[in-house]
Amino acid sequence: MRPFEEEFALLNETLQEMGALVARSVHRGVYALVEKNEDYAHQVIRDESRIDQMEIQIDDLAASLIVREQPVARDMRLIVAAIKIDTDLERMGDLSVEIVERAFSLMRQPAFPEVIDFTEIANLVESMVLRAMEAFAKRDAQIARAVVTSDDGVDESRKKIRQQLIGLMERDATLIPRALDYLIVVRSLERIADHATNIAEDVIFLAQGVDVRHRALEVA
Amino acid sequence: MRPFEEEFALLNETLQEMGALVARSVHRGVYALVEKNEDYAHQVIRDESRIDQMEIQIDDLAASLIVREQPVARDMRLIVAAIKIDTDLERMGDLSVEIVERAFSLMRQPAFPEVIDFTEIANLVESMVLRAMEAFAKRDAQIARAVVTSDDGVDESRKKIRQQLIGLMERDATLIPRALDYLIVVRSLERIADHATNIAEDVIFLAQGVDVRHRALEVA
Repeated sequence: MRPFEEEFALLNETLQEMGALVARSVHRGVYALVEKNEDYAHQVIRDESRIDQMEIQIDDLAASLIVREQPVARDMRLIVAAIKIDTDLERMGDLSVEIVERAFSLMRQPAFPEVIDFTEIANLVESMVLRAMEAFAKRDAQIARAVVTSDDGVDESRKKIRQQLIGLMERDATLIPRALDYLIVVRSLERIADHATNIAEDVIFLAQGVDVRHRALEVA
Repeated sequence: MRPFEEEFALLNETLQEMGALVARSVHRGVYALVEKNEDYAHQVIRDESRIDQMEIQIDDLAASLIVREQPVARDMRLIVAAIKIDTDLERMGDLSVEIVERAFSLMRQPAFPEVIDFTEIANLVESMVLRAMEAFAKRDAQIARAVVTSDDGVDESRKKIRQQLIGLMERDATLIPRALDYLIVVRSLERIADHATNIAEDVIFLAQGVDVRHRALEVA
């Protein structure tokens, strides 16, 4: 390994740890919602502070690495990507807390008369987060492109749940506040997937050294 | 000015330009919705590509500035903040496009029977974006703290619109799909305000040289 790579390893390790924690928060947030599990909900809220701290830690590691190593342009791009990725991960942590807030709101209301199946969308989104981080660790554009593509699956899944909820609201107006809670969860998951897509696009940009962000699929 | 400050000026200028364009997109997005103005809607979509390009441009400026100037730790923090801010601004551009997508959806449906007044929330959010960017330009923690505080006003405004829309849905189920479009717009505006708050917290962090992100109000 080049000296820079060695120095960068610690930064990447922290970033990977942050990514894993975020993926866990997404998983736990949805579990808290579906199973009305308060322990998981509180865990997500506790982990958000940790995630926030990790963002600051990674930015500081990045800044001091730059000052110390004076990296060449190519390495600089890697560090810039790390800073952008921790920003995205921190937002995902916030969104997990939003899911948990809807879970608490739903726990306070009567049980919903129909099962809303979040398994598919939650699994997809969680895996997008993990795969995006893996793509960064390996600087692997192929994995990154698969992440970008799986956003379509999230979209499909989101539409299905949305239609189910609209149907229920139309049939029974008393369900509207609870259905809106579920709709917010769906939107939060969709937005977490967007952030994972951002990360994947950063990796494609890095791996190819060309400018594919914001038009990843045309190039792919 | 120190040499670094001179070099940084171009980066900040581009960032300010990006911020102004984003604020304009927020304004135009809401205007497109309220006035069913297709020209404004298309303008927002066109400007999103420009915003995306500016993100890349600012990251590149930041990276080359670092490589060339080998800045000290304090200046590094400023550059790291710029990279984080362009990430937030880019997300706001996406959210403006989401508003426009809901505007197009509503244009295709019958006129809504009740006026939903977005004036207050849109003005608040637009001003948060502009003030957050001003706070960064001046590295002024006081302006930044005012931005963080005005997020409460957005929250109030959001709740009012949300209650109105829920009431309408409960009374007339045929309004549900259109009301959901409006609710998505409210949420997009709220999320734009969150990103402006992020930027303001970055500025407080910079201006005070202490670690106030994620707990800005406790310290303030």
